[in-house]
Amino acid sequence: MSDPHTTPVAFIGLGNMGLPMALNLMKAGHPVRGFDLSETARALAATQGLPLAGSAHEAVEGAAVVISMLPASRHVEALYLGPAGLLGRLPAGTLLIDCSTIAPASSRLLAEAAVAQGLDCLDAPVSGGTAGAAAGTLTFMAGGDAATLDQATPLLQRMGANVFHCGGAGAGQATKLCNNMLLAVLMIGTSEALALGQSLGLDATVLSEVMRRSSGGNWVLEKYNPVPGVMDAAPASRGYSGGFGSALMLKDLGLAMEAAVASGSATPLGAAARQLYAMHCQAGQGGLDFSSVLGLISGQD
Amino acid sequence: MSDPHTTPVAFIGLGNMGLPMALNLMKAGHPVRGFDLSETARALAATQGLPLAGSAHEAVEGAAVVISMLPASRHVEALYLGPAGLLGRLPAGTLLIDCSTIAPASSRLLAEAAVAQGLDCLDAPVSGGTAGAAAGTLTFMAGGDAATLDQATPLLQRMGANVFHCGGAGAGQATKLCNNMLLAVLMIGTSEALALGQSLGLDATVLSEVMRRSSGGNWVLEKYNPVPGVMDAAPASRGYSGGFGSALMLKDLGLAMEAAVASGSATPLGAAARQLYAMHCQAGQGGLDFSSVLGLISGQD
Amino acid sequence: MSDPHTTPVAFIGLGNMGLPMALNLMKAGHPVRGFDLSETARALAATQGLPLAGSAHEAVEGAAVVISMLPASRHVEALYLGPAGLLGRLPAGTLLIDCSTIAPASSRLLAEAAVAQGLDCLDAPVSGGTAGAAAGTLTFMAGGDAATLDQATPLLQRMGANVFHCGGAGAGQATKLCNNMLLAVLMIGTSEALALGQSLGLDATVLSEVMRRSSGGNWVLEKYNPVPGVMDAAPASRGYSGGFGSALMLKDLGLAMEAAVASGSATPLGAAARQLYAMHCQAGQGGLDFSSVLGLISGQD
Amino acid sequence: MSDPHTTPVAFIGLGNMGLPMALNLMKAGHPVRGFDLSETARALAATQGLPLAGSAHEAVEGAAVVISMLPASRHVEALYLGPAGLLGRLPAGTLLIDCSTIAPASSRLLAEAAVAQGLDCLDAPVSGGTAGAAAGTLTFMAGGDAATLDQATPLLQRMGANVFHCGGAGAGQATKLCNNMLLAVLMIGTSEALALGQSLGLDATVLSEVMRRSSGGNWVLEKYNPVPGVMDAAPASRGYSGGFGSALMLKDLGLAMEAAVASGSATPLGAAARQLYAMHCQAGQGGLDFSSVLGLISGQD
Repeated sequence: MSDPHTTPVAFIGLGNMGLPMALNLMKAGHPVRGFDLSETARALAATQGLPLAGSAHEAVEGAAVVISMLPASRHVEALYLGPAGLLGRLPAGTLLIDCSTIAPASSRLLAEAAVAQGLDCLDAPVSGGTAGAAAGTLTFMAGGDAATLDQATPLLQRMGANVFHCGGAGAGQATKLCNNMLLAVLMIGTSEALALGQSLGLDATVLSEVMRRSSGGNWVLEKYNPVPGVMDAAPASRGYSGGFGSALMLKDLGLAMEAAVASGSATPLGAAARQLYAMHCQAGQGGLDFSSVLGLISGQD
Repeated sequence: MSDPHTTPVAFIGLGNMGLPMALNLMKAGHPVRGFDLSETARALAATQGLPLAGSAHEAVEGAAVVISMLPASRHVEALYLGPAGLLGRLPAGTLLIDCSTIAPASSRLLAEAAVAQGLDCLDAPVSGGTAGAAAGTLTFMAGGDAATLDQATPLLQRMGANVFHCGGAGAGQATKLCNNMLLAVLMIGTSEALALGQSLGLDATVLSEVMRRSSGGNWVLEKYNPVPGVMDAAPASRGYSGGFGSALMLKDLGLAMEAAVASGSATPLGAAARQLYAMHCQAGQGGLDFSSVLGLISGQD
Repeated sequence: MSDPHTTPVAFIGLGNMGLPMALNLMKAGHPVRGFDLSETARALAATQGLPLAGSAHEAVEGAAVVISMLPASRHVEALYLGPAGLLGRLPAGTLLIDCSTIAPASSRLLAEAAVAQGLDCLDAPVSGGTAGAAAGTLTFMAGGDAATLDQATPLLQRMGANVFHCGGAGAGQATKLCNNMLLAVLMIGTSEALALGQSLGLDATVLSEVMRRSSGGNWVLEKYNPVPGVMDAAPASRGYSGGFGSALMLKDLGLAMEAAVASGSATPLGAAARQLYAMHCQAGQGGLDFSSVLGLISGQD
Repeated sequence: MSDPHTTPVAFIGLGNMGLPMALNLMKAGHPVRGFDLSETARALAATQGLPLAGSAHEAVEGAAVVISMLPASRHVEALYLGPAGLLGRLPAGTLLIDCSTIAPASSRLLAEAAVAQGLDCLDAPVSGGTAGAAAGTLTFMAGGDAATLDQATPLLQRMGANVFHCGGAGAGQATKLCNNMLLAVLMIGTSEALALGQSLGLDATVLSEVMRRSSGGNWVLEKYNPVPGVMDAAPASRGYSGGFGSALMLKDLGLAMEAAVASGSATPLGAAARQLYAMHCQAGQGGLDFSSVLGLISGQD
């Protein structure tokens, strides 16, 4: 990538996150060729002016960097591994950046296979949601070699505002799982405290402000208050629309639980959080922002 | 309190918190007279130069302000209420400030009885621990009339750095219960995330830093990391000594649970937190700082 | 009570449980005089032919036995204790049987006060619900002296099928709290297992039968299956009507939690069960049988 | 299997469960040939007189039935599937019975592959532990065709006392997961109730008996009381030795959690149970019987 601004990029997976990320790269001057198995996704990408390939294999021809943004471990493994996978087709020195949120074990599997082929590989899941993807303000949590990440950073910065190096292969995924498990706990714990306070006669805005400035302070009270009306910009104040869906939080908590089972770890509050989001989603609220779990706690579901 | 610097103060309850608070008032120039039922506490106060009375009734003679810092609801009720309580002895206009952490319902009971006698009354529980009490940097969460709090604020600021007005009588207690329940959830949730991350091969310092700057950010990661060595000034780095004891956290969670039962509220993570602290204390760790709950999560208890 | 069949009984508290219990005593030949503060309850009792007194004090005149069946600790304490309480009016040797489900500490308080007056006293909360009360098949869990219980047993057997001696004063209440906390756990645990099994493609009837005969066997699978249609006689098969209401289970779990807080005990699943019933009741389902918690688990709330 | 008593059987997996099961078949007259990858296991089997093969492939030569008893999904998949797996070597009509406790999805995968080769296949995980394996009193929870199970039943009855038909392929595994998740909940819930009762002054034996005969009745109170001394034959009365190890219960709960994640199910108490067993095992108690979780609840860990 001697001239990083013109590095040709293949972008596989053009969903709600992938498409705006690919478009940001294109706007920054990169030749980008995209692909998605879904015809609907390809059609939407075409209307936005993104050059498309007819297959993943065609998309990666001539690309120095391959970025993927796919729903789950099985999609990532199917794309890269196996007899028909991309790995066997890519020239040594190609850089793979998988931005999907998947199991850390899958990321490590991919990285090992990639390195065995002489490729460079990063797992770089993101936080920031569709709004962050569109605005180019995502946070990347990256796992892999420091030198590889240094090389990739200019590219990542065209799609995001923060790039953290979390450790070796899989460390990006592991970090994201831990962070999002903690986020779910922050959201539910904050919701409980506010609901209990209201039942004791407290004003939610006053209580939020006192806790924010005290030892209860956390990201939810800073940015994402779950009580409607306390924070104008929060999803709670627009009917829990937009934001980070409860079903996606449930998916991330599932990955965290699988990792905890595999490592024999105890995560008592994280496990309780998954149960609450499972009940919330089964009650039909999976499409609402994850702060809507307040409704389950306080009897609005 | 025309000249607040010389308002005479009676201070009832000279334990680990009360004594340094009373001493700070004395150093600021207030005539203070203290009392504690415990002879040991009185002896220690005497060695620090605090003027003592022979009884609570003697302590309040001539005092314009009565401050109490007692262990539990029953002590507060016994001090002020009943046929032998202080309320009947105090002249109208005396200001009562109860800094104990007790049930909101007890605070409301006291306030109603006090107001009926023409007294002013605040519930003003604190956070900040013994270190904050000694340094005069406590946070007060106050419930009662705004005008009464305005009057009391100069006095409170000699003992603390922050004074929050949380609402009417009992609102200080209710706010503290909500905040501390949330704090317990933050501590356990953060401990779980760090323990899970370590089991997945992550470095605790790196993971802490990434989550602190992401949506997992919270007071525990800012000030009070539970992993030994990550934060030099935290209790975890000195064998979980000092700080806020696990047994005290268990007490506060018990008050929160009683309030939740009384109001029919659901607090799933707060309830799980109380269980974990109960197991931790039963395992003999009640004297360690509350961040030591990491040991229960990760098998060190 | 030389001729137990004709012992005169005062019965205080004629609600859904108390009235059928009093009627069973009357049918067995006892002179019974009842009282309830609620005019509606008295009117209903009158239509059933139960002799009524104009006050609790009038009801106990000439009674050798006083039975009470009241909603909560405060009602029991108000009835017996205090300056206007019954205790001061009853002749030595009178037998008190409190069948209310209240805090064990309240029962002990009552027993101590009663014994100090030369009275005999039992706490004897029941299980079996309104159906058991009507059929005379209740189970009594009794606390107090063995000799006192021997004396009371013929009377209790006119209202119930089983009488257990659980220990000294308060032991009946403590036993009932433990049993009902366990029952809530059995109900939710069984509901989860059945819901998980169905989501894995199993037939609820087959799974219920296999678990019932295996190490998952429990009272819920024997008598009270929560899946509609599996057990014809269960509330689940009649829209979760009748039976033991979710709001009553929530009340009992609240008592258990208060006892656990007071004794510093850990009850992790019992605490989680209270949270689930609190959410279920807040969602408006408190009037349904407690087996309807399956709906919260599986997304039907 | 025209003469079921002489059906030749290959038995793969001769661990604590497999070896006594194979010996029971041998004692019943079946020609049995065993294999285990572990040399230690083979040596122990040899001392018991079990005929051994040099490989799994050699073991199945001439066998009409292949039984496997292996630790986890990956071992079962490695044995049967893949280019070197047994499936390709077995003649049509051979009956496979996998008694391992593994993921239902793995069992279904195996069954589909087996049926495609013209083989008959059952998943038949067991309960009853090593004592039941030795005594031939295991319970089999079987999934697969009813006709196939009818054919297999005489063989299973030489190793066990109960055979349940739970449904199609994978239903045996699914049933075992549900049952064992419920069992963990019964054990912890019963332990909590007994610990709470003791803290309230109750006698554990009396409380156990009252709950056993009331709505708290369950298998743990019938067969497996966790309080030392209450039940002579229970592991609790011999230092929690023997029985069903906590680490094995943790494994089963992990399988249940993975199934719940995959199906989006909520299992709040089952999830809490896994957390408690994870903490218990991390505290070094994984080798003790699963009733030792009482020690975690009551502070003895």
